[in-house]
Parts: sequence; structure tokens; C-alpha cells
Amino acid sequence: MATSRGRGFLDARSQLYPCVYSACMRACTCQFRLCPFWPKPSLRNRSVHPIQSVLNPGKQGRAVDVGMRQAAVLTISDRGSRGEREDKSGSVVREILREAGFSIVHSEILPDDRSLIEEELLRLADESCLDLVVTTGGTGLSPEDVTPDATLAVIHRQVPGMAEAMRSVSLAKTAHAMLSRAVAGIRGQTLIINLPGSVRGARENLEVVLPALEHALDKIQGDPSECGTDHESGKG
Amino acid sequence: MATSRGRGFLDARSQLYPCVYSACMRACTCQFRLCPFWPKPSLRNRSVHPIQSVLNPGKQGRAVDVGMRQAAVLTISDRGSRGEREDKSGSVVREILREAGFSIVHSEILPDDRSLIEEELLRLADESCLDLVVTTGGTGLSPEDVTPDATLAVIHRQVPGMAEAMRSVSLAKTAHAMLSRAVAGIRGQTLIINLPGSVRGARENLEVVLPALEHALDKIQGDPSECGTDHESGKG
Amino acid sequence: MATSRGRGFLDARSQLYPCVYSACMRACTCQFRLCPFWPKPSLRNRSVHPIQSVLNPGKQGRAVDVGMRQAAVLTISDRGSRGEREDKSGSVVREILREAGFSIVHSEILPDDRSLIEEELLRLADESCLDLVVTTGGTGLSPEDVTPDATLAVIHRQVPGMAEAMRSVSLAKTAHAMLSRAVAGIRGQTLIINLPGSVRGARENLEVVLPALEHALDKIQGDPSECGTDHESGKG
Repeated sequence: MATSRGRGFLDARSQLYPCVYSACMRACTCQFRLCPFWPKPSLRNRSVHPIQSVLNPGKQGRAVDVGMRQAAVLTISDRGSRGEREDKSGSVVREILREAGFSIVHSEILPDDRSLIEEELLRLADESCLDLVVTTGGTGLSPEDVTPDATLAVIHRQVPGMAEAMRSVSLAKTAHAMLSRAVAGIRGQTLIINLPGSVRGARENLEVVLPALEHALDKIQGDPSECGTDHESGKG
Repeated sequence: MATSRGRGFLDARSQLYPCVYSACMRACTCQFRLCPFWPKPSLRNRSVHPIQSVLNPGKQGRAVDVGMRQAAVLTISDRGSRGEREDKSGSVVREILREAGFSIVHSEILPDDRSLIEEELLRLADESCLDLVVTTGGTGLSPEDVTPDATLAVIHRQVPGMAEAMRSVSLAKTAHAMLSRAVAGIRGQTLIINLPGSVRGARENLEVVLPALEHALDKIQGDPSECGTDHESGKG
Repeated sequence: MATSRGRGFLDARSQLYPCVYSACMRACTCQFRLCPFWPKPSLRNRSVHPIQSVLNPGKQGRAVDVGMRQAAVLTISDRGSRGEREDKSGSVVREILREAGFSIVHSEILPDDRSLIEEELLRLADESCLDLVVTTGGTGLSPEDVTPDATLAVIHRQVPGMAEAMRSVSLAKTAHAMLSRAVAGIRGQTLIINLPGSVRGARENLEVVLPALEHALDKIQGDPSECGTDHESGKG
């Protein structure tokens, strides 16, 4: 059973298993018994992710991309969540991501409520195992702006350069760009990126990180390709 | 009784109460019983700030600016605090802030003592309820430079873009700009900004954040205006 | 007994003691009894560093530079540590540092193992008391990239402007620069700087911080010179 999930397994004889062991340490949904990620109790609760282990050199295959990457867009807005404001920035973000080749599998308007935002981020990263979650709104200095705080609470690792780059490019256009507290970070195999709530700010900021997104997601999900090539000065 | 504090309350019939319920959850000092912030026991120890609650749409009024914003300038310098060094950077900072419309209500030279700096920041934010506290000095790499550490210890939320913008603009002039560990952040309704100790560094850095200061303070203090307008890409 | 260590003590009569009380609160190795850092039990386990105390005005001398600064270069690479990849970026980093006047006293290839990296950083800072430790590799987003996390775990104070400056300059050349999670920070009197693992990235990033390095190390090690001069806008 093929899935729209963006990763599969290519074995040593180039046999593609277009399923995927769920990125979140759950069982494969393909039911194809040759698939090395086919569910078995021994795989559950493992501390080493099966995909990671097969990525090691000398093993019998490697993970590959199949299909499109999956993204969710969360609009964070008290007014939007009450239906008092059209979700223009969410629409713009979805449009840009679709053009960039993402499948938008979830879209939602949440109020400026830190617990709700955290819960939703956790669900999208840990259960839905999405590649990318983009939020728009709630990144400013108002007491109700809590999106960065919710994001910081759930990510395992920050990607400070993404937030710096977004602010730096916007700053050339408006001094208010320095007031964005937007955060970018990684939870498991999911990249979470905060964008400002204004249409222009969301578009401008997303376009700044877009050129690095594919490489970022490849790396987050364990792409074992050589990183010492000299075209990647951002790579460690 | 009018106060020089920078916030008041405008009710639904445009009646201005030029007092203010102290920004720090203390009682209003106006003694004007029609004022919705007039002290009553039920207001004390509330987790929701009265000003914030009236800022919600559908309520009977909104907070407005009255008078000037209040700022303090802290010069952090062992030598300055012993009278061995003239406080030139403090003077420059005060002059720039006054020209920008701030009322400088407090000015002080403190030694490079983390506990003292923390105590003073807490007092200025929690008791004096100032809009802005600007420090100059103690942002470098010397063992005695502790201003950013003291600031990080008292702020509730960082505003990383302000610190990034200050360093980024200074970096175009001198490589030493990258050695500033200056922090900007929010405690309650007070914005705290660290500046370097040199006259030139303090001036240059303050001028970088100045264009965003009014908008920042409006937002920190709960300005409910629509944030989706496209002139504010830094706003969430 | 003279030492190659980069600090000495100049007393009030300009008598140079070309030894140094070990920067890490250990005893002086010079055995020269006039040296104010000559070992005595009362100096051990002091919370105030002896060098810092003599740096105070009114005391009988001041610390000075003698000889070259000492640096270590750690290459972080699973493949490199297994001998499967030539350590090109390490070579480039060592070459640049030597040209800048550093003595490379230690060089090593470590796997992407957070505990090992932390242990080595601790050893180089706390026991070898080096002026500078530069790492190359492991700064990206892959699950195995842990160099910044290991660095954050051991440093006492971050120097965020160094990391920002490196990313900002690289970003003008490649969008992938925003994916570096590189950290710069201070442990005791040792500056630790992460560089990306690619040759080009390591060179470009190191060249960004190089012009500020001498001033940074002077300050970290307690240079008491006046900081209010207007050529140092990054200094606090």
C-alpha cells in the first residue's frame, strides 16, 4: 500500500518500498511484509529509530523520498479563531508552500492560547509526523503573543539562523521587523517555523527560508549524504 | 488627580481618565471613583491585569496614552560608580531618549554587580512600572561584564531581534560589535534594553532600535489595534 | 621557568614574571617565589581568581601577554574519526589560526558523540586552560549533529554576536548558511567557537570572527584597559 508520506525505503537491490515506517517510531502502515519497517513488537519503544539504523553505511539500504513532503499551516489569531478576521496570511502561506511542492495536509486557526498551540504542535509532530509545521501570527510583543513561547516549549533543537535570517531580511524593509520573536526549531523529524501574522510579513519571511527548506528537511530526516562538499557552508 | 504616567483609560463615551491603574497590578492612584481602575480589594492579586481585560473588544473602553512615556537610564560601570569616570554614555542615552519624547524619571550609575543590577531592574519594572529601562555598559566579554546576565535573569520574554539588529548595524562599522552580549527583553510592561558602554556604541545601538520603540511599547502594554495590516511585518 | 602560556605578570616596577598562574585556578608552574602566583594552599579553591584580583587598580601589578596564544582544533566527524574522510577543514582552520599568531597545541578528530565532545571541551578549557578551542563539523540539522548542543552544555556565557555574524556573512553567499546551529561561548578563560564542517564554510566563518578574536581573548582573560573609548562599540 503506497502512502503519500514523503519517505520510503530503497533496499540494496534498489527495490523501493513506497511505504514508510512512520517517522515517529510507530509501525509501518503498508502491511507489506517484505518492508523492513513492517510492524513488529520489537520495533516499538526502541530508542534508535529504525530509519536511522538502516541509514548507517554497511546496512542493506537507505531511506529515500517518495511523494510530496507534508506540511501543516497554523494561523494563530484570537480574532481569526472567532471568525472575526479573514485568514489571509494562512492562505498566502499555503499557496507559497504548495508552489514549493508541499502537500498541505492540515490547516487550522487557533486562538492565542499557549497550551492549545503546544498541544497542536505536539500532535502534528509526534502523531501526524509531518515534515513541516508553519505558524503565522502571535510572534510580536503583545501580552497575548505566545506562539514563540509555545514553540520553544516543544522543540528539541532551535535553528537560530532561520529566525535571524527572516528578521534580517525584513529589517531592510521595516524597523518593526526587529520586534518579531519568531522561532524556528526541530521536534523529532518535524521542522517548525513561526511567521509573523501580517500577510506581507508572513510572505516575506517564508520566502527567506524557502531556499534552504528542502536541504533542511533532508538533513533533519537523516539524509546521510556527505556534508563536506564545499557547496554547503551552513552544513556542519 | 492626573499623573505623568503614560497610560490612561478612555471609556465608551470618550471620557478620559488621565490616571492609570498602575501597570503592575497595584491600585490606581487617582482616587477618582468613576475610574475603572479605582482601587478595590478585588482588583488586588488578580492574575488578569484590569487594563488587559478592558482592552478586549466588546468591553466598555480602551487604554490610551496620556502624557509621556517614562524611562530610566542605568549606567553600569565599576569606575563610574566610584566616580573615577564621567558618565558620558549615560548622558548621550538620556539626551537621545528625551529627544524621542521620553521623560527620564530615573538615572543611576551602578557597579558591575549582578545582584545589584537585577535588584534595580526589578524595582524599576515592578515598583516604578516604567515603560523603558535602558542600560549602558557591562555587555562585553570581561569577567566583570554581567549586565546581559542580570537582564536575562529578570526578563520574562526576550526580544532577540533588537539585540540582533543592534549588533548587525554596528558590525558594518567595527568587527568588535560581534562581542556585545547585549540583551533586550520584556518584564511585565517594561522593556529593558542593554547598550554597550562606549559613547559611540551606546549611541549607534540606541539609534538602531529607536524607530521601533514606540510600536514596541504600544504592543507590550496591550495595544489592541489590528496587527494584520501590511505595514508591520515584524508584528505577529 | 618560562612557559609558552600566553599570560604573565608585570609588577609595579615593570618586573616581568614570564610564568603564569594557570588560568584555571591551579598553581603557577614557575617555582619563582617572587611570583605572586607562586603556589600556596590558600590560593587553591578560591572563588576569586588571583589574576583578577591583581588586575584591580591600586594593586601591585597587572597581567600581560607573554608568548603566543594557545589553541586547539577539534574536527567533529563520524567518518573522519573512522579514517574514512580526510580532515581538510581541520587543516584549513589550523593554517588560518597559525597565520593569525596562534600556537596549535592540540588537534583531534572526534565522532559525532555529544558526551565525548563535552568531555574534550571540558578538558581543554579546565585542565589545559587553552585560550581558544575551535570545532569544525556537526553544526547542522542532522540527528547526528550535536556539536552546538555539546558546546551549549559546557559554556558559561554565550557570545551570540559571533554566531550571528558568521551566519550573516555566509548567508550572503548561500541560503544554507541559515542552517548552521553553530555556537560561540566562554568557559572560564577559554573561548569556544563552532565552525561548519565543510572546508569553505569553516574558512569563511573563521575569517568572520578573526578580526575580533584578539580583543575578545584579551577581555575574557581580564584585560583591565578602559572600555569607554569610542573605538569599541561592541564592548560593554
